[in-house]
Amino acid sequence: MAIQGNLVVGQSGGPTTVINSSLVGVVRQALAQPEIEGIYGMLHGIRGLLDGEFTDLRQESETTLELLMQTPASALGTVRYKVKPSDYDSIVAVFERYNVRYFFYIGGNDSMDTVYQVSEAAKARGYDLRAVGVPKTIDNDLALTDHCPGFGSAARFVASAIRNTGYDTKAMGDSGPLKLMEVMGRNAGWLTAAAALARQEEGDPPHLIYVPECPVSDEQIANDVKSMYDRYGYCVVAVSEGARRADGTAFAASTGVKDAFGHEVKAGVVETIAQIIEERTGMRARFDKPAYLQRSFAELQSPVDRDEAYRAGVEAVRAAIAGQSGVMITLVREEGPEYRCRTEIGSLANIANAERMLPREYMNKAGNDVTQAFIDYARPLIGGPLLPYARLANHPVPKR
Amino acid sequence: MAIQGNLVVGQSGGPTTVINSSLVGVVRQALAQPEIEGIYGMLHGIRGLLDGEFTDLRQESETTLELLMQTPASALGTVRYKVKPSDYDSIVAVFERYNVRYFFYIGGNDSMDTVYQVSEAAKARGYDLRAVGVPKTIDNDLALTDHCPGFGSAARFVASAIRNTGYDTKAMGDSGPLKLMEVMGRNAGWLTAAAALARQEEGDPPHLIYVPECPVSDEQIANDVKSMYDRYGYCVVAVSEGARRADGTAFAASTGVKDAFGHEVKAGVVETIAQIIEERTGMRARFDKPAYLQRSFAELQSPVDRDEAYRAGVEAVRAAIAGQSGVMITLVREEGPEYRCRTEIGSLANIANAERMLPREYMNKAGNDVTQAFIDYARPLIGGPLLPYARLANHPVPKR
Repeated sequence: MAIQGNLVVGQSGGPTTVINSSLVGVVRQALAQPEIEGIYGMLHGIRGLLDGEFTDLRQESETTLELLMQTPASALGTVRYKVKPSDYDSIVAVFERYNVRYFFYIGGNDSMDTVYQVSEAAKARGYDLRAVGVPKTIDNDLALTDHCPGFGSAARFVASAIRNTGYDTKAMGDSGPLKLMEVMGRNAGWLTAAAALARQEEGDPPHLIYVPECPVSDEQIANDVKSMYDRYGYCVVAVSEGARRADGTAFAASTGVKDAFGHEVKAGVVETIAQIIEERTGMRARFDKPAYLQRSFAELQSPVDRDEAYRAGVEAVRAAIAGQSGVMITLVREEGPEYRCRTEIGSLANIANAERMLPREYMNKAGNDVTQAFIDYARPLIGGPLLPYARLANHPVPKR
Repeated sequence: MAIQGNLVVGQSGGPTTVINSSLVGVVRQALAQPEIEGIYGMLHGIRGLLDGEFTDLRQESETTLELLMQTPASALGTVRYKVKPSDYDSIVAVFERYNVRYFFYIGGNDSMDTVYQVSEAAKARGYDLRAVGVPKTIDNDLALTDHCPGFGSAARFVASAIRNTGYDTKAMGDSGPLKLMEVMGRNAGWLTAAAALARQEEGDPPHLIYVPECPVSDEQIANDVKSMYDRYGYCVVAVSEGARRADGTAFAASTGVKDAFGHEVKAGVVETIAQIIEERTGMRARFDKPAYLQRSFAELQSPVDRDEAYRAGVEAVRAAIAGQSGVMITLVREEGPEYRCRTEIGSLANIANAERMLPREYMNKAGNDVTQAFIDYARPLIGGPLLPYARLANHPVPKR
C-alpha cells in the first residue's frame, strides 16, 4: 500500500552520460503518482541529505527535463562519501523532519549498500519508508543486473575512440605505428573489453586488450605488441587503468623515484607500459588517456543505454509505490534473436562488496583479447553501429 | 593552358578528421577535367611518390568517396619525412616516368614548402608541372590563410571535451574540483584557445587557458587556480602541450630523474602542472589527455570545416588547370554579419618556417584566457552550437 509523503532522490559516485536520464525517469514517474507530494533532489548525494540541502524538482521545466536526457554528469551534484553507521540516525531524523517517505539513490555498489542500510535503519526505527536503488556505473561491475546503465554509453565512447585513434595510427605507418589507450575501470575490465566493439574487419584495432582480470607480464606485453606489429604493420592496445602483473602489482604503480621536491614521481598505466614496450622492442609507443571523457561524452550516448537508464528510474518509483524497499531495479536480458531487456527487482541484502568481474570466458586463453561471447553480450548495449567510415579499395597503379 | 596527363595527390603530416574531404574534393574535380587522365594517390605521402607506390583513385566507388567525407585520418596514409634537396631529382624523374602533370599535396607548413620546392624543381628541369598545395592542420598555424581546414573540427572536439569534463568536474563538488586537459599544439595555442568555445554562461569552464604564446610561472598557475576555485567552487583548465615558463622552459620537460633501467622518467605537461598545483595549494588536480582523439574524432566533425576542406581540394584542381603552380589554396573571410569564406590562391614562395602564432590581442592581459576577439574569430569555424545541455533552475526547498 502506498503512503503519502515526500520523495528525495540523489546521485552518487562517478557520473555517467545517462545518470540524468535515470533522474528524469524518477521525476516523471513521481509526477504521475498522487501519493507523492514534494519531489526533492539531494544536492551532492547523501551529503545534501544530511545537511538538508534539497532542490525542488517539481519546479523544473519540461524543457529542462527533456534536455537532461542528453546532459552528462550528475545534475544534482554527486559525492564520494562513505556513510558511517552513526549517520543513519541523522538520516532517519531528516526523513521525519521533511516527511520523506520515498528515497531513491542512483549509484554503484556503495550507493546500493547505502540504500539497503537506509531501508533497514528506517525499519529498525519504526519509520515507514520506501528506499529503492537505481543502478549506475560505467564500470559495469554491479551485481544482480545483466548490465548497468552508464556502461553502454561509455562503451560506445571507448569503441569510437579506439577506432578513431586506430585509423590515425594506421595512417601514420612507420612514422608512429604503436598506440596505447588507457581505459577506466580500476578492478573490472568490462569497459576496456568494450574497445573490441570498434572492429569491423579482421585485423582492425584494438589488436590487444589488457584487463585486471587477466594479469600479464612485461615480457608478454612486449611480445604481444611485437607480434601484432609484425602481422599488421601497426598495433593499437586498449589497457585498463587496473591492468596488473601476475604477482598482483599494478602497472600504475609509482616509479619509486623522487622529484626535486622529494615527492614520488607517479607514472600512469599507459606511461609505464609505453616504457616497457620501448625498453624491450626499441619502438616508441604513443598514447591517449581520455580519462573523464569516457563517462561524460554525451555526444556518444547509446540510445539503448539512455532508454534503460530512464526506465530504471521509472521502475524504481513504481516499485516503491508497490511497497518495495531495500531493493534495486535490475536489467534482465530476454532470450531471443532481438536484444530485449526487462526490468526486475533485486534484493540489496547482500550487495555490499559484490563487485562483478569480467567472466573468464569473455577473455581468450592468452588473456589479451575478448571472445565472441563478450562481443555478443556487449554489442547491443552501445545502441547501434558506429558512424560508417570508408577504406580505399586500393587498386595499385602498375609500377613503371 | 591546361596540359594533358596524370595527377598525383598525397596526404602528409598529422591527420585530421577532414583531410579526406580535401582528398575527395581533388578526386571529384579531377574526374570532371578531361585534361586529367590517371588520378593516382601517393601512399604515405612523398615516400609513396619516391617509391612509385600509387593507388588508382578512379577505381574507388562513389560510396567510398561519400563515406570518406566522414572518415578520419589519411586514407592514403601519411608520413613524417623531411624532403632532402637530393630527392627532387628523383621526384621529377618519377613525374616523367608516370607522365604526372598535376601534383597536389594536402598538408601543413612543411608540406606546403615541399609543394613549392617540387614546383621549382620541375621548372628548373624544364618539366611542365602544376603543383598546388591544399592546407591542412589542426594546429591552425599555417600562414596566408584565415584559418586552416582541420582546425574547426579539432576545435569542436576540444570545446565539447572541456565542456563534458567541466560538467563532470562541477558535479563532483569537493570530491574532485580541479581538472586539467592537455590540448595539442606544440608551438601555437589556437586549439587550446578553442576550449573557450565551450562556455555558455559566466563562470563556465574553461576557467583558465594556458598557451605557448603567453608564458606563465608556477606561482601564477597556482594562484590562478586557487582564485578560480575560490570564486566558482571548481576549476577547469585547458593547457597547451606547448605551455611554457617565462624563461622558455617547457612544462613538458623531463623530471630529471631516472627509472630502474637508468632511463629518464618523462612527465607530460598536465602531469607536471598537476604536481605544481598540488605542491602549492595542497589540492589534487585530475586530468584528461585526449591526445590523438583531438584530430581523429570524426563524430565531432564541424560541417563548416568539412565543406571548406572539400572546397580547398576542388579549388586546388581548378587552380592547377588554370595554370597555377607553387601555390596554395587559402581561405579569406568576407566582411558581413554572416560567416563566409571565399578561397584565393596564395604564393608559397615564402611559406617555409612561416608558423602563424595566436596574436597577442586574442589573449587577455594576464595571459590566462582568450578575448572576445578570439571567440568572434573561432566561433563560426566549429559549425554551429554544441549539443544542448540542461542545468537545473534549482529552487531550494526551505530548511526544516
